[in-house]
Amino acid sequence: MRALFLDRELTFRRDYPDPKARPGESIVRVELAGICGNDLELARGYMSYRGVPGHEFVGRVVESARRELAGRRVVGEINAACGAASCEWCRRGLGRHCPARTVLGIVGRDGAFADYLALPDDNLLAVPDSIDDRAAVCCEPLAAAYEIFEQTQLEPSESIAILGDGRLGAMIAMALRAEGLTPVVGGRHREKLDRIAALGVKVSLESELKPGFDVVIDASGRAAGFARSLELARPRGRLILKSTAATAAALNLAPLVINEITVIGSRCGRFQPALDALAAGRIDPTPLISAVYPLDDGIAALRAAGDGLNFKVLLRAA
Amino acid sequence: MRALFLDRELTFRRDYPDPKARPGESIVRVELAGICGNDLELARGYMSYRGVPGHEFVGRVVESARRELAGRRVVGEINAACGAASCEWCRRGLGRHCPARTVLGIVGRDGAFADYLALPDDNLLAVPDSIDDRAAVCCEPLAAAYEIFEQTQLEPSESIAILGDGRLGAMIAMALRAEGLTPVVGGRHREKLDRIAALGVKVSLESELKPGFDVVIDASGRAAGFARSLELARPRGRLILKSTAATAAALNLAPLVINEITVIGSRCGRFQPALDALAAGRIDPTPLISAVYPLDDGIAALRAAGDGLNFKVLLRAA
Repeated sequence: MRALFLDRELTFRRDYPDPKARPGESIVRVELAGICGNDLELARGYMSYRGVPGHEFVGRVVESARRELAGRRVVGEINAACGAASCEWCRRGLGRHCPARTVLGIVGRDGAFADYLALPDDNLLAVPDSIDDRAAVCCEPLAAAYEIFEQTQLEPSESIAILGDGRLGAMIAMALRAEGLTPVVGGRHREKLDRIAALGVKVSLESELKPGFDVVIDASGRAAGFARSLELARPRGRLILKSTAATAAALNLAPLVINEITVIGSRCGRFQPALDALAAGRIDPTPLISAVYPLDDGIAALRAAGDGLNFKVLLRAA
Repeated sequence: MRALFLDRELTFRRDYPDPKARPGESIVRVELAGICGNDLELARGYMSYRGVPGHEFVGRVVESARRELAGRRVVGEINAACGAASCEWCRRGLGRHCPARTVLGIVGRDGAFADYLALPDDNLLAVPDSIDDRAAVCCEPLAAAYEIFEQTQLEPSESIAILGDGRLGAMIAMALRAEGLTPVVGGRHREKLDRIAALGVKVSLESELKPGFDVVIDASGRAAGFARSLELARPRGRLILKSTAATAAALNLAPLVINEITVIGSRCGRFQPALDALAAGRIDPTPLISAVYPLDDGIAALRAAGDGLNFKVLLRAA
């Protein structure tokens, strides 16, 4: 099959071996895949990943032992847990923290920048017909936004800043607005802020934000974003950290202690709340899509996704 | 009066002006003062403090408009809030986060390494006769330990590691044990760990601690302690940050996000819970006291407190 393959550098292959389904797994033919900031970090060597990248997709099940999945259009949760009865995390329904897990296109499992992928049956969710492919492919980053609601309670009366005018910041803003909150997105790029503002989201230049926010969500993707977020949070406020900048930065944590800030690390989440919001039409992420490239032009697509002025770049396989 | 005075360097003065009580303030004659890691940081230039350092004390009220305080033996909360009706923090009973506050011996208010100090009447708590001076002077660091219970719930079933075998780590361990918890203190100094073990606390070399703790409390006082604490906390675990290391360190926050750790910055707390624990005999911090110096030898006392093998060093004024 065709695949983008990362091994120090990213190459396009026409003869990559098809994935094989292990017991309990299905094979999905990828239709659309989304490029995420994390894919760009992987391509730069973060986490020393070797394999096919890509973890945002919508596709069709072409092989499954589970009858209700066969032939269905699906999205898929990216953490494939061990599922062992002896695993505390799997038992608690938190397989996405299972220490033996593989992660689609990130840890030990070939990903979605290819014609086919394999995932456990339990990871796959059928996509309602009301959600088109270009919205469904955004389910994974939207689920990451919805993860915030599983970790902390946000109130309409609270002031909320989202740091970062990129893809993730925009997705989080849409999810928060869909749930009745009114965040302001702070960024450093006037053109990107204008595009986010066009979605009906309040925006501001990051430098013009004033300290005192009840909640700051760092989706800046920059190591320096954390220190700026600490400045912007009020004493006893919360800082929700979404960025996984690959580089370490010099950081003075004294303000975190002095102001008794609570920092909540937040990663990917369950797909169902995001899928529900898409199905109900509460969120339409499609205006964030800047470009759709054929899989054959995947290398160029990743380059385009790395260009600051592009939002979501997709790859079309099928 | 006599005082230690910090202005780039620390000097001992015999002719320092006596403090004057502003309306609503009392004058306290200091009997014992405790030296804290933060005082050593201040003396190194952290926060550019100029004035008399010292914020841990027990003393006697020698001047007060409030009748029930006059002549009483007292300890005192260190944050002097503005108290204005318009101040959100003061209104919420969180004067220790009031942006206009002064802080005894730390921000804009001369401290306890002197014969006398001034504090608002509202900051002073009478010390029950059952608590001797050497225990009472430890009320401030114990209150910092008890602050943890105001911020998060700790369960006897949870595994808890305290990083740092210094003064603060030992105080926190004692407070947690007094409340029915069984932490392990991880440190790098065998002799200090032995002294903490003699208090009945479980100890371990830091390097021998294994990851997976439900709760990690960083009282290491080292910037590198934070990264080690992140390693030791289980996914979805809590990291309570007590250290305010003055130096910034290069830090990779990706594990915080990937493992969805919650970090809770924790500073000083209300004195009452600590005073109650001392009065009830649930905690006896006096074995932590290594030495008592006369105020005249204050410079030598701070040097001694900076020696890793000393625990709590006190200054006796009266």
